[in-house]
Amino acid sequence: MKKILLLNGPNLNRLGKREPHVYGTATLFELEKKMKEAALSEGYGLTAVQSNHEGVLIDLLHQAEDEGIAGIIFNPGAFTHYSYALRDAIAGIEVPVIEVHISNVHRREAFRHHSVLAEVSEGQIVGLGFFGYELALQALIKMHKGDEEVE
Amino acid sequence: MKKILLLNGPNLNRLGKREPHVYGTATLFELEKKMKEAALSEGYGLTAVQSNHEGVLIDLLHQAEDEGIAGIIFNPGAFTHYSYALRDAIAGIEVPVIEVHISNVHRREAFRHHSVLAEVSEGQIVGLGFFGYELALQALIKMHKGDEEVE
Amino acid sequence: MKKILLLNGPNLNRLGKREPHVYGTATLFELEKKMKEAALSEGYGLTAVQSNHEGVLIDLLHQAEDEGIAGIIFNPGAFTHYSYALRDAIAGIEVPVIEVHISNVHRREAFRHHSVLAEVSEGQIVGLGFFGYELALQALIKMHKGDEEVE
Amino acid sequence: MKKILLLNGPNLNRLGKREPHVYGTATLFELEKKMKEAALSEGYGLTAVQSNHEGVLIDLLHQAEDEGIAGIIFNPGAFTHYSYALRDAIAGIEVPVIEVHISNVHRREAFRHHSVLAEVSEGQIVGLGFFGYELALQALIKMHKGDEEVE
Amino acid sequence: MKKILLLNGPNLNRLGKREPHVYGTATLFELEKKMKEAALSEGYGLTAVQSNHEGVLIDLLHQAEDEGIAGIIFNPGAFTHYSYALRDAIAGIEVPVIEVHISNVHRREAFRHHSVLAEVSEGQIVGLGFFGYELALQALIKMHKGDEEVE
Amino acid sequence: MKKILLLNGPNLNRLGKREPHVYGTATLFELEKKMKEAALSEGYGLTAVQSNHEGVLIDLLHQAEDEGIAGIIFNPGAFTHYSYALRDAIAGIEVPVIEVHISNVHRREAFRHHSVLAEVSEGQIVGLGFFGYELALQALIKMHKGDEEVE
Amino acid sequence: MKKILLLNGPNLNRLGKREPHVYGTATLFELEKKMKEAALSEGYGLTAVQSNHEGVLIDLLHQAEDEGIAGIIFNPGAFTHYSYALRDAIAGIEVPVIEVHISNVHRREAFRHHSVLAEVSEGQIVGLGFFGYELALQALIKMHKGDEEVE
Amino acid sequence: MKKILLLNGPNLNRLGKREPHVYGTATLFELEKKMKEAALSEGYGLTAVQSNHEGVLIDLLHQAEDEGIAGIIFNPGAFTHYSYALRDAIAGIEVPVIEVHISNVHRREAFRHHSVLAEVSEGQIVGLGFFGYELALQALIKMHKGDEEVE
Amino acid sequence: MKKILLLNGPNLNRLGKREPHVYGTATLFELEKKMKEAALSEGYGLTAVQSNHEGVLIDLLHQAEDEGIAGIIFNPGAFTHYSYALRDAIAGIEVPVIEVHISNVHRREAFRHHSVLAEVSEGQIVGLGFFGYELALQALIKMHKGDEEVE
Amino acid sequence: MKKILLLNGPNLNRLGKREPHVYGTATLFELEKKMKEAALSEGYGLTAVQSNHEGVLIDLLHQAEDEGIAGIIFNPGAFTHYSYALRDAIAGIEVPVIEVHISNVHRREAFRHHSVLAEVSEGQIVGLGFFGYELALQALIKMHKGDEEVE
Amino acid sequence: MKKILLLNGPNLNRLGKREPHVYGTATLFELEKKMKEAALSEGYGLTAVQSNHEGVLIDLLHQAEDEGIAGIIFNPGAFTHYSYALRDAIAGIEVPVIEVHISNVHRREAFRHHSVLAEVSEGQIVGLGFFGYELALQALIKMHKGDEEVE
Amino acid sequence: MKKILLLNGPNLNRLGKREPHVYGTATLFELEKKMKEAALSEGYGLTAVQSNHEGVLIDLLHQAEDEGIAGIIFNPGAFTHYSYALRDAIAGIEVPVIEVHISNVHRREAFRHHSVLAEVSEGQIVGLGFFGYELALQALIKMHKGDEEVE
Repeated sequence: MKKILLLNGPNLNRLGKREPHVYGTATLFELEKKMKEAALSEGYGLTAVQSNHEGVLIDLLHQAEDEGIAGIIFNPGAFTHYSYALRDAIAGIEVPVIEVHISNVHRREAFRHHSVLAEVSEGQIVGLGFFGYELALQALIKMHKGDEEVE
Repeated sequence: MKKILLLNGPNLNRLGKREPHVYGTATLFELEKKMKEAALSEGYGLTAVQSNHEGVLIDLLHQAEDEGIAGIIFNPGAFTHYSYALRDAIAGIEVPVIEVHISNVHRREAFRHHSVLAEVSEGQIVGLGFFGYELALQALIKMHKGDEEVE
Repeated sequence: MKKILLLNGPNLNRLGKREPHVYGTATLFELEKKMKEAALSEGYGLTAVQSNHEGVLIDLLHQAEDEGIAGIIFNPGAFTHYSYALRDAIAGIEVPVIEVHISNVHRREAFRHHSVLAEVSEGQIVGLGFFGYELALQALIKMHKGDEEVE
Repeated sequence: MKKILLLNGPNLNRLGKREPHVYGTATLFELEKKMKEAALSEGYGLTAVQSNHEGVLIDLLHQAEDEGIAGIIFNPGAFTHYSYALRDAIAGIEVPVIEVHISNVHRREAFRHHSVLAEVSEGQIVGLGFFGYELALQALIKMHKGDEEVE
Repeated sequence: MKKILLLNGPNLNRLGKREPHVYGTATLFELEKKMKEAALSEGYGLTAVQSNHEGVLIDLLHQAEDEGIAGIIFNPGAFTHYSYALRDAIAGIEVPVIEVHISNVHRREAFRHHSVLAEVSEGQIVGLGFFGYELALQALIKMHKGDEEVE
Repeated sequence: MKKILLLNGPNLNRLGKREPHVYGTATLFELEKKMKEAALSEGYGLTAVQSNHEGVLIDLLHQAEDEGIAGIIFNPGAFTHYSYALRDAIAGIEVPVIEVHISNVHRREAFRHHSVLAEVSEGQIVGLGFFGYELALQALIKMHKGDEEVE
Repeated sequence: MKKILLLNGPNLNRLGKREPHVYGTATLFELEKKMKEAALSEGYGLTAVQSNHEGVLIDLLHQAEDEGIAGIIFNPGAFTHYSYALRDAIAGIEVPVIEVHISNVHRREAFRHHSVLAEVSEGQIVGLGFFGYELALQALIKMHKGDEEVE
Repeated sequence: MKKILLLNGPNLNRLGKREPHVYGTATLFELEKKMKEAALSEGYGLTAVQSNHEGVLIDLLHQAEDEGIAGIIFNPGAFTHYSYALRDAIAGIEVPVIEVHISNVHRREAFRHHSVLAEVSEGQIVGLGFFGYELALQALIKMHKGDEEVE
Repeated sequence: MKKILLLNGPNLNRLGKREPHVYGTATLFELEKKMKEAALSEGYGLTAVQSNHEGVLIDLLHQAEDEGIAGIIFNPGAFTHYSYALRDAIAGIEVPVIEVHISNVHRREAFRHHSVLAEVSEGQIVGLGFFGYELALQALIKMHKGDEEVE
Repeated sequence: MKKILLLNGPNLNRLGKREPHVYGTATLFELEKKMKEAALSEGYGLTAVQSNHEGVLIDLLHQAEDEGIAGIIFNPGAFTHYSYALRDAIAGIEVPVIEVHISNVHRREAFRHHSVLAEVSEGQIVGLGFFGYELALQALIKMHKGDEEVE
Repeated sequence: MKKILLLNGPNLNRLGKREPHVYGTATLFELEKKMKEAALSEGYGLTAVQSNHEGVLIDLLHQAEDEGIAGIIFNPGAFTHYSYALRDAIAGIEVPVIEVHISNVHRREAFRHHSVLAEVSEGQIVGLGFFGYELALQALIKMHKGDEEVE
Repeated sequence: MKKILLLNGPNLNRLGKREPHVYGTATLFELEKKMKEAALSEGYGLTAVQSNHEGVLIDLLHQAEDEGIAGIIFNPGAFTHYSYALRDAIAGIEVPVIEVHISNVHRREAFRHHSVLAEVSEGQIVGLGFFGYELALQALIKMHKGDEEVE
């Protein structure tokens, strides 16, 4: 069974606790559970990891390549805005990465308007809550199944 | 039957003819046909309009509000980057708008990295080809059905 | 009888419906009615037009020159901030133009702080609500009557 | 009898002597006299002060609050462009302030295009000569009489 | 007979009336007449259109492609400086476009120094008055005749 | 017989050898020969000089003024982007100068998009290859013959 | 008895009246009283002055040097952001100055994020309310007593 | 007994060894020892951690929230200037954080003048050496004891 | 006897006491004495004033115009860099003003490199110590005697 | 035997796998092996470490100081462009560090043109492939042997 | 006899011919003659050179050092604004250099407001016409005679 | 025997005389002598030229190409920061160029941090003193011998 990697970056372990007016009240555990089920129902496994450590995230991206992961759903949290090391990690692997943001980052502070990762990701899904992760899953599966060219 | 509006901005009438290495070879007609079918299969009607005229797009956004449209999928083309008038039109209506871009605009010229509409749209789906429109449709329907809070 | 032109730009047809905390609850129709009366009481006719189309506004400015209009009250909406074409249209006619903004644009988003039209207009009246239009009318009539040098 | 404060900032004592091609030939004395008459005809008193001293202008703004002044017409001269202390003084009082500029500052040097006071004033009247002061007077009286919401 | 399209953007209908110290006293009619004759003398037809509407200009560029026009002489007026939609239209067609400006835009306001269209046009001819249009015609014909590589 | 000066700046001696994908394969010698013939056929002499030395180019511009040259075709190469000394030299002479660039500099590196000479030249011809020089020649001769005002 | 100078800049006379959501409801009088007591309990005198006049503040800084003041607690209000004259005054005296801000200026408007005085002051205490003044007093006394090197 | 967390970021383990002209000769061990004693004398426990790992610091901030820590004294070292991930961590917890810098960062390199954390911290104490940590401790205890509103 | 005005701005009363490595050890009194003698030896009177108050300096500039002063030597201290009010005062009088700086401001902090007064002064003498004042005196006298055009 | 430390930052473990058109096909293992041999042949030991963790790299720099390492060859990968924490770590140790980049970073994306580490390193060797590491080794050994002053 | 070097940069050979409204009608020859006389009357020789070649000016600055020239009066023309090579040449010699500009460069184009040479010159004299050269001569002689410290 | 060209730009003839704290006390003659010997020992000739003239350096780069030089070691001095003409010259030849800077330019003035030549050179060696030239020689010879791919 092919696998999808769900990667959540810094502070996303606080989902449900941190700033609920921005991120809602559901927890990371609930998100990961729902995503695993959604993947399974399409015949894919899904591994979910969250880390506050930039280096750990880089290691996981490398490992995903080596293990033949089919696609990566990545919410890089605040690393989105300055981690050129993550950018290089994404650029250096073949596995397609879709960047997801729960909130509409363009409605928030100016520093959140720019992503240093966007250029090397396949695409972005922004502002659609947890549902954005599900849409990203669909897109990665579609890419993987190759039944339609997504460009 | 509730309706979704599919709005395509300037130059998208050239889909399939214009820069196929960027936008693919499928035409606008094919996109609109596929989207109508996808909407119908969910029990929604879908009206599709394309225009190269900023004023026409503003008029259509106003009209969508007056006609009780359930949601708008909007690829504003190059207006994305400078039309503050479209921004005001979106901000001035209650209908949720999702911004879609076929290509990953963050991989292209610098002027395409900034959207003056992003702050007033519900969310953005970028770089996932025609499939991005389908994902936007799903998100709007989910919002409309209200079976889950999308924030 | 000499005429004044009252020109309202994009989205001002939504007055009273759009963002009432910013623009109040009175409608464009009420504004235009009040302005016609105010002009008449001073012995002037007043033609009121609103358009969401930049090109239509340019055409109207040209036409105002050709028809010998005495002065133009212009709320250019969001075109204020980027329409260099409107700027050229104003610069290319002799009819005096006064720029009016209902809300205090300097309290709003940064992009609203700069007007590309201000340099070629006679003056600006900002933040005084509908009453700003009436003050603009007075100023144009004063200029037209020529009973005092306004510089 | 309620009072209006007419405040003129640095170098406006030179009106009529200084750069007549920019500011006209009428003097500050004439302006103040005309404004007093205009206020009286509406049943208001008007106190007029000019000062080249930033600290004096701040003191006067504070005092206006304490004395229950109905409104302030303020031409801050060049302080418009850098006096954050005046900005704080205006922000810290309840009395409404309307910023007036005799000339169209947007036609002059770039440093004159930005006002650090605009965000905390009620509105601005720019480029309409001495008549701009009279329009400001009308707007303040209208606000004070409260017979119509000016927003 | 092959055709050349002469496209003039916003406010160029005012040629001869508008700011004669900048644009001279000859009218658009005279320019178009002279250009038709010049084209004919080289064995080409020339269609001349002027519009103040961005959308109309985009439509015309698309249509030129569909009709097999040999080349386009384009003075985009103020759209030069912000119309990314026109840029996309030019980029999306195969017909060669030469950008022409009557006045030396580099001697005028700063906003006129940058063209968002220059990168996608074949070349620019700036500051040589009406004669610039004639030179553009020669260049397009030379390109079309293919008797010399112009790079 | 009146003379035209053809001035080529730094590295243009390498034409035909340097970056042929940008500048083509024809040499400077061929360009100068063709230009001399074109001038002669119009009854003008043409002196062609190339130099990599900024000071030499300044000296030649001064000398052109003293010798009553009718016009100067100038490709300043990379000096275009920083030589304020050349700018002063052009501004200080009466002889009309037309700036020519072989390639469309707006399609190349950002530093090539700005010309410090454009403001003081009569006009620019950009991106039309060697043919741009011929068009410049025509424009200068037209100016010199004075049979039509070019502004 | 050695003395400390407590200097409050423009608009701080309005403490308790001005924007209580930002500055609290205690008055300047109360602040100065509390500070005098706090100084006395450590065996120091404390002189408190508030002024809206930049020149007066400069004079006081000079005078503090001449009178052998032990340290200065300075809340420069809005002068913080532009008064290079105050900067020179602080740089020109030996008395240590600690800059205090009641509110967290970094949470407020962008212009409040930069202090032109910070480079020449000993240190800053920001966002800790009136208690910040007391902390500054302690730090100055510690410096003066010299019983520990503060670097 | 309530606890205070003393958090020192990257390179602060080198205190006393690294650049003594900037940071003094006392070591981190001495600082932590002194701070523990100071806390104890006020009836508080103090845990001191230093880490060069951004992820570890984020984890500790989260944990402090979960363990009901009373307040955090945080010297984020160079992370101050770019770690938006730390900013999000601080923003996402309720525990008050005071940012401390030993040296006057405004006298050092330009990159040290801006803190991406300042907006989400309670306040900053800058340039007062080790004593700044003690002042921060006092301020946190005062906040915790709630015997005075600190705003 | 015609008079010259010597105006020194903020902190220049500290000459000889303040930062002697920048400004030398001679005092303001000595400077003024030397300048009076130098003026007298040329048959001119010289009035010397120093003030830390921007408003006082503006008043003095106005007064100089009214009293027919022949020229003004002005060291505006730190006001050089932000006092647009002083700029307007200089621009509004006919008396020629020469700006003098004792130290070479271009070797100091970046904010000292720009003068908002330079555009409206006759000229600047920078970095030549007290001798710069004497040179300014000579230049003003030369202008006044009109025995040679100084442009 | 004295030791050299070879430190490779994020993503350099992917050498040979990642973007071979940029970094070549040789692996990190090969690089480290070659460098160890090169060091040995000069009588030095060489320890090679690669890490994707910023904190680990900081720890290693500190440790190098404590262990008396003779010099550090450091390719900081993408940390080059934002890790002020690494900058402080380098600045805080005495061991000389030479920054090495395999590719010519100045030919790549703009964000790679600026190094926040360059100011505190001894020098940089850029664009010379693996050979750049060998040159850095030579330079460090030369510095260490002290047989020539390298400044 | 000690010598002064008078160095004039690009285009100053055109004095009297070039833009007389900016630079006056006197020629370079007249300037040099007057300066030689002025120097002689003080017992100094004066060598005057003008060149449009940056390299020649650098050579002359080096040579001045080697020949023991007492001081250099330097009008660098447009090189003022970009020649970092001239800056290095001035910084590398001991001979004092005073920068002179005939016109008030701060009243002209923005690019003339910044001098890359100012930081390494002793001082600047700007806007005082030819008389500025004479004042520079006096200052250099004063420095040389050492009868007074000029700082 | 193949040849290497050693090119030193402006002011490097002053090595040993100019700012020895920056550049050391060894002279250009000594550098060139050492480099010739180093080349010879590897079986290469080395021609060394220094010039303060940009045009001469361009000519030499062209000539190197024509003469089949194996590689160029180039210290462009201050031309590094603005000579786009040198950039074009390097880009237009096939001979590999390595940019060398004696001092660590990133520790000096901001204008020295950017090289307009870096993008077109093979690589840079910065801050390693004269030894940097020797390393560049090794790298060029390695490239020439082709015994290893340097990318």
